[in-house]
Amino acid sequence: MFVKRWLVGDPLKTAQASHERLSKTLALAIFSSNAISSVAYATEEILLVLILAGTAAVAWSIPVSLAILFLVLVLTISYRQIIYEYPEGGGAYIVARSNLGELPALIAAGALMIDYVLTVAVSIAAGVAALTSAIPILFPHREALGLLSILFIVVMNLRGVRESGKFFAFPTYFAIGALALMVLLGTIQSFMNPGAMPIAPPTGTSDTMEGLTLFLILRAFAAGCSAVTGMEVISNGVTAFRAPESRNAATTMIWMSGILAFLFMGISWMAFHYGVLAKPDETVVSQLARLTFGSGIIYYTVQIGTMLLLVLAANSAFAGFPHLSSILARDGFMPHQMATFGDRLVFSNGIIILGFFASLLLVVFEGDTHALIPLYAIGVFVSFTLSQAGMVRRWIIKKGLHWRGKLVVNGIGAVTTGIATIIIASTKFMHGAWIVFLLVALLIVMFRGIRTHYKAVAEQVALTRDARPPRPRRNIVIIPIGGVNRSVVRAVDYARSRGGEIRAILVDVDKEETALVEIKWAQWGGGVPLIVVPSPYRSILGSLLDYIEDQRQQDPDCWITVVVPEILPARWWQNILHNQRALMLKASLLFKDRVVLTDVPFHLTR
Amino acid sequence: MFVKRWLVGDPLKTAQASHERLSKTLALAIFSSNAISSVAYATEEILLVLILAGTAAVAWSIPVSLAILFLVLVLTISYRQIIYEYPEGGGAYIVARSNLGELPALIAAGALMIDYVLTVAVSIAAGVAALTSAIPILFPHREALGLLSILFIVVMNLRGVRESGKFFAFPTYFAIGALALMVLLGTIQSFMNPGAMPIAPPTGTSDTMEGLTLFLILRAFAAGCSAVTGMEVISNGVTAFRAPESRNAATTMIWMSGILAFLFMGISWMAFHYGVLAKPDETVVSQLARLTFGSGIIYYTVQIGTMLLLVLAANSAFAGFPHLSSILARDGFMPHQMATFGDRLVFSNGIIILGFFASLLLVVFEGDTHALIPLYAIGVFVSFTLSQAGMVRRWIIKKGLHWRGKLVVNGIGAVTTGIATIIIASTKFMHGAWIVFLLVALLIVMFRGIRTHYKAVAEQVALTRDARPPRPRRNIVIIPIGGVNRSVVRAVDYARSRGGEIRAILVDVDKEETALVEIKWAQWGGGVPLIVVPSPYRSILGSLLDYIEDQRQQDPDCWITVVVPEILPARWWQNILHNQRALMLKASLLFKDRVVLTDVPFHLTR
Repeated sequence: MFVKRWLVGDPLKTAQASHERLSKTLALAIFSSNAISSVAYATEEILLVLILAGTAAVAWSIPVSLAILFLVLVLTISYRQIIYEYPEGGGAYIVARSNLGELPALIAAGALMIDYVLTVAVSIAAGVAALTSAIPILFPHREALGLLSILFIVVMNLRGVRESGKFFAFPTYFAIGALALMVLLGTIQSFMNPGAMPIAPPTGTSDTMEGLTLFLILRAFAAGCSAVTGMEVISNGVTAFRAPESRNAATTMIWMSGILAFLFMGISWMAFHYGVLAKPDETVVSQLARLTFGSGIIYYTVQIGTMLLLVLAANSAFAGFPHLSSILARDGFMPHQMATFGDRLVFSNGIIILGFFASLLLVVFEGDTHALIPLYAIGVFVSFTLSQAGMVRRWIIKKGLHWRGKLVVNGIGAVTTGIATIIIASTKFMHGAWIVFLLVALLIVMFRGIRTHYKAVAEQVALTRDARPPRPRRNIVIIPIGGVNRSVVRAVDYARSRGGEIRAILVDVDKEETALVEIKWAQWGGGVPLIVVPSPYRSILGSLLDYIEDQRQQDPDCWITVVVPEILPARWWQNILHNQRALMLKASLLFKDRVVLTDVPFHLTR
Repeated sequence: MFVKRWLVGDPLKTAQASHERLSKTLALAIFSSNAISSVAYATEEILLVLILAGTAAVAWSIPVSLAILFLVLVLTISYRQIIYEYPEGGGAYIVARSNLGELPALIAAGALMIDYVLTVAVSIAAGVAALTSAIPILFPHREALGLLSILFIVVMNLRGVRESGKFFAFPTYFAIGALALMVLLGTIQSFMNPGAMPIAPPTGTSDTMEGLTLFLILRAFAAGCSAVTGMEVISNGVTAFRAPESRNAATTMIWMSGILAFLFMGISWMAFHYGVLAKPDETVVSQLARLTFGSGIIYYTVQIGTMLLLVLAANSAFAGFPHLSSILARDGFMPHQMATFGDRLVFSNGIIILGFFASLLLVVFEGDTHALIPLYAIGVFVSFTLSQAGMVRRWIIKKGLHWRGKLVVNGIGAVTTGIATIIIASTKFMHGAWIVFLLVALLIVMFRGIRTHYKAVAEQVALTRDARPPRPRRNIVIIPIGGVNRSVVRAVDYARSRGGEIRAILVDVDKEETALVEIKWAQWGGGVPLIVVPSPYRSILGSLLDYIEDQRQQDPDCWITVVVPEILPARWWQNILHNQRALMLKASLLFKDRVVLTDVPFHLTR
């Protein structure tokens, strides 16, 4: 408990909850890092695909990047409409549920859940890659560094929203500034010195040379689509903004998209211009930073900034995942513990589950960004498409002010993201996207199984309107004793403080011992009758259960209370020196109807 | 439970216990296999030491074997006296406790416990070696075969004494017969053909050649002392014999010693005569059986017999260890659960613990007999010496009929085993015997720690003679509810069936919800007052604990009963879909004085 308090801080009152709202500056830091940080790996993933067709094919990175820029534009405009339409938070699940029905909503939910986990794993892997690019001796420790980072973020998030916001705001702006400086300087240099020679491509790529097919270009586009992941984050978290929530969120969205577009296009342009290609042990951004600033202090600043930004991107999933889980839990699709606030007004369960699965993924894929990328983005684009399609349906049914214009905007959004989804799914399917489809299907089965269970529970505990509460029944109170000591006297004291037909039960294992107990009982029994039962099997538990069963058969309608005098040792390990009779008794009685067990603890002090 | 019944059979009545007594034929099978089976490895261990000084030194195996034969004789005579003097079972612990005091008794107990574990591990390792000598392809699977054998014996023993006796009697006699046939035939052949050439010794031993020193011969003697381990088993288990117990036990002892002496000397003689030496992958006995019978069916019969005998030797420890544990438990030196009979009138806990530690040892020493031997025998000889010394002291103090003669017998026993103990301890100390001394010391610390704890408990729960049982107190009964459903109605029904000041507590998390619950309560509350408590921290648990604390402070003398309506899912995995409130509440209330928690389970059926 002390450790928990120290790590996650004191609990907050409900009244403090509204103070947890975020200013635009803080919200940009928390919600935009996910989208903006993608620039650290998106260009590199495009180049990694194109290089398969040789160094000449790398020129296609510019048109591919422009196509992705178009996606950013479309998503920005269409998501602004969702922000205004769903001020209570318009995640894909909510939009799909209210406009398309349950199955599309669950598909969106499953896809988003998986992508939250992937966001954490990919961002942490890329963040660690940024660090190991700058400090190569850390390269063998990628996995451990990744796991430590996730642990760090989990603890930070368990401390609560505002504090993690504060903690993360400075590094976000620091990273954006560092990357922007690099892009600005690098782009200016590239125009001042247009004839810079491309760096020689890494050898060995010619072995696996493929033709520059349309499929390859589409694959490059699909890989680059990881750049726009995280753009939906603001629309999910509108309620976290200060009033006017929608307006502040929409403004933040514009800022986020602008920064993303600028950095992504700048990096793609620089990579093309300087002929930088992906290396296994150094990221493209690291190479660009070295070219721009040399290997001095500013280079390290850019790398550290990039790493921090990626860590914060992982952090943004820790706001989204528990939020989505709690919405699903309220609808009965997730365990209802997920719906409740934790100590720090955050959804502790969701944070811990997300941290666990992201760590698992990181270990399975050995902390390698490129290995994780084929699984990524597909979930996000499925949910993009579902929410845009949902908005289209909404305008058609709801109509309202300027509905035709809004319909066109979301229509373009739906078609564009739909095409992108098909491209991503078809080009990545064999490289791992099938895993995502399988997992989404499994999640949907799980969601529905959970809801079916809760419905069954609700039906079973429901009270019928015309029934009456039962009349009071008999209650036979049984105190099983093995001897007479302070613990037993305490249990008798407890039993006598309430009503019921109280009796102590002694199992007769040893005649002499039984006689001794009977004598002591006369003094200490407090008037409670002592019943001695035989023990043909030498089993105290068995004889006791037989007696209880007899009582139940004599009066099936009565309650039976078993009051167990239990000695609780002062130290936990001393438990192995004591019979776990109470535990065994409880296990034996658990499925007997109307038999209730009460431990009366007697605490030892040494 | 079904699995347990199927594996270990139905429970037996106490009246059946006396039928569990063993006839001499059965007792010889159960108790002698430990001692007799040692012939499978004792000669080999002697040869393994002597060969270090070259093949000529192997001739010393005969005098060494004769010295061990003398030990067998001395032990037989002196243990017969113990059997008659301690008809209730005269293990070294009991003899030392009643004649020498607590510390010698605990040393004996610790040494014996360790040797029981070693008996299982060594016997199983040697049994598997007998098998893999005959079927070499099983050699790489030694460890797995050993572990499976231990598991098999554990299950057999959990089935009860007599049944395992039946099960084991046939193979014991079968094995003794097979080995006796081999020794007879082999010895006759050796005398008919006295000039047989020794087989060439294995190469490579000359590299590590040592001089034939007295130390080496003593080391060979110490290694061979493993032959007499298990001779004390009968004296521990006199009570398991049919009446007249002591006489039957003494007769069985003679038979056992005779068989042991015959087989051991025969094998040693044959090994010397045929010049058989130890090989890593084939035992000496296996080589002798091949020489005597060729590699046909009779050879395999001898090997299987040897293996079964060794498995049964391991089995005999499963009778001794739980027995010793229960005696120690009754004296307060072991957890008192060990003192109680299990379902099948055997000491289930001890059986399981012995199986676990023997398996552990087998895994640590990779199932290799030779690696385990240095740890072995030392414990047995310490206990031999202590019990013989105890008997000497007994005769001096008690005197009685023919006491001087008895004193001489046990005196010779004490001196002989004492010298053997010193030889074993000094020659094996660096090879692993130090581990045994360390473990004995640790066990003694544990024994005493356990007794100290029980004494402290007894003092704490003791009733003072002049005190009176307390007068009945108030009992405030609190039913925490979150809504009104059948589970809550059931808890109210239970609470109303006994007395006390009953009240339901609703933590006010949501005003509307609270109002709804209050309306429903009017219909279903059965007259129990509903108290709504505020929830400033949104923590239902916290508010509830605050309320309970308030009540305690208002009347520190009263009992507080918390009756928790608990929904129990139909399937165990559904538990993760339900709040573990009762569990958390219990954990929070565990250390509050005079607060008692009662779950009222509501069983779901689907």
